[in-house]
Amino acid sequence: MLRANVIRLARHPKDSVTADDFVAGTEELPALRDGQVLVRVELLSLDPFIRWRLTPGRFFGPTLAVGDVVVGNAIGVVEESRSPALPPGTQVAGAFGWRDRAVVEAAEAQALEPADVPPSLHLGLLGLPGLTAHVGLFQVGQPRPPATMLVSAATGAVGGLAGQIGRILGCRVVGIAGGAAKCAHAVTRLGLDACLDHRAPDLAEQLAAAVPEKIDLFFDNVGGAVLDAALPRLGVGARVVLCGMISDYNRAAPYGLHNMMHALFARAELKAFRYLDHAATFPAARAQLAAWWRDGKLRADEQIADGLAAAPAAFVGMLGGANLGKQLVRVS
Amino acid sequence: MLRANVIRLARHPKDSVTADDFVAGTEELPALRDGQVLVRVELLSLDPFIRWRLTPGRFFGPTLAVGDVVVGNAIGVVEESRSPALPPGTQVAGAFGWRDRAVVEAAEAQALEPADVPPSLHLGLLGLPGLTAHVGLFQVGQPRPPATMLVSAATGAVGGLAGQIGRILGCRVVGIAGGAAKCAHAVTRLGLDACLDHRAPDLAEQLAAAVPEKIDLFFDNVGGAVLDAALPRLGVGARVVLCGMISDYNRAAPYGLHNMMHALFARAELKAFRYLDHAATFPAARAQLAAWWRDGKLRADEQIADGLAAAPAAFVGMLGGANLGKQLVRVS
Repeated sequence: MLRANVIRLARHPKDSVTADDFVAGTEELPALRDGQVLVRVELLSLDPFIRWRLTPGRFFGPTLAVGDVVVGNAIGVVEESRSPALPPGTQVAGAFGWRDRAVVEAAEAQALEPADVPPSLHLGLLGLPGLTAHVGLFQVGQPRPPATMLVSAATGAVGGLAGQIGRILGCRVVGIAGGAAKCAHAVTRLGLDACLDHRAPDLAEQLAAAVPEKIDLFFDNVGGAVLDAALPRLGVGARVVLCGMISDYNRAAPYGLHNMMHALFARAELKAFRYLDHAATFPAARAQLAAWWRDGKLRADEQIADGLAAAPAAFVGMLGGANLGKQLVRVS
Repeated sequence: MLRANVIRLARHPKDSVTADDFVAGTEELPALRDGQVLVRVELLSLDPFIRWRLTPGRFFGPTLAVGDVVVGNAIGVVEESRSPALPPGTQVAGAFGWRDRAVVEAAEAQALEPADVPPSLHLGLLGLPGLTAHVGLFQVGQPRPPATMLVSAATGAVGGLAGQIGRILGCRVVGIAGGAAKCAHAVTRLGLDACLDHRAPDLAEQLAAAVPEKIDLFFDNVGGAVLDAALPRLGVGARVVLCGMISDYNRAAPYGLHNMMHALFARAELKAFRYLDHAATFPAARAQLAAWWRDGKLRADEQIADGLAAAPAAFVGMLGGANLGKQLVRVS
């Protein structure tokens, strides 16, 4: 019997997640049945939505029981197959979880497409973060350049792409990120027009100076104090893409937003979305994102932690903003 | 020289408005110039937007200086005219302010149309509140019946109409109002399916019981704690019409919204608007509202305070929810 190395949830975090909330272990892999494949996991993606799965009652969607293997998107290679659709050697993506080998139905593993890009891009640029940025901009935010766009978590997996795409579309793009190093990266590497440090005590004043013309579109991945600081800077008819609220995920009591009246004053729209609701747009979105990447117009930053055992600390770091671009874990 | 009785702003209220923030006085009316009319004001409308004009720096739009006559919509009759468009005796509506006579350009006074309804309806059903309810529902919220609609300030000037129109459209409509008497009125007179008392300590539990199917559309006039209680009850794809946030207008520090993450979970849209941006829809909206009223399908509740001197106390009462339907002041 083959055993997989796994990371399980050790306890339900109440507020901030720590590495001690996880525990390494093994699990017995079932024998392959018809239609199933055995995948050796190569790269694991650490995405903020995983936080929602760890604490019952606070978030949306199913939650993990203590002892469950942690969920997550990954890519790997088919080692054994009882599905003609995915012969051994096929590189695949799927929600394989925090494990180094997984037995899944062939329908739950997608061959990487397009195949001419580095496999890791299928977890970033062409995976959940890239599609989220694309849907959030083209289906939800729909900027009408020339426009001033604000993007938070501007060097994160989603925000880093959204900001660059805003520039490609002809928007003036101002980022918000945590710390001077990230802000420098946003301007010099991602090409944003400016980037503000939300760790500075004067974010509201920085914003007033950086967007005197007011914001047409705010692509917000952070929520909380960052959203609150941006609301008074919304221009008439502004849109706020509610993409994520990562600043609240580790708080037992969410931040209290005081500035929603400014949405009223600006006659603004705040729009949340789920990228999977726009799956019909994915093929064209992937083609466009890949083309921009091949043309050197779109950087796809990634940061790779080494070994499945590093996943908990890397996940904790990502929730705290330690990553620059997509946070991955090299599993094998 | 003709003098008008007026109510002036005596001081800028910091948080709650009191009657002492206003002072009665007179002003000299200028001699009529060509194109102007002298209007004797009959009825004054007290609308929440006036609160925005009283305290500089907190709200949107121009604010009054201490000593300025308070702004407000009103109806009256032309007493003298130097405009052929508005001969003496014409009943007109306009932003005449808190005064018993006003000299205005003829273009700033609109003859009442349609003329076959009681004049007061031009300040309620066919004025700012009715058009706000109509635009908020048909242009912004766009309910798709069968749908569950929640409306706050459900017996107010706007909410009372919005809830009834929701019923006409085939929605299940649940109201929120302050106190048992208003809730009874909302159900027995306005025909809502249910009404919850936001003064009760268990609004969140009441909501969970009243809308187990979750909310498709929330027409919110209140904001603050009422909006916060509704956010966790939004269904997938729900819309929130941000029409007003009256619960915050008298607070120096706005309420802190803790439940915005639920907008994310519900993939909801929160949409603010200004009714004047939809002026092209007003003729058809007025015709439809008047037709529903003539057919007995739409009640237009109103409450009338007597005499210009009663305006300050009536305005303070309206901000605190003392009114049932449109709050008016009979000036002459």
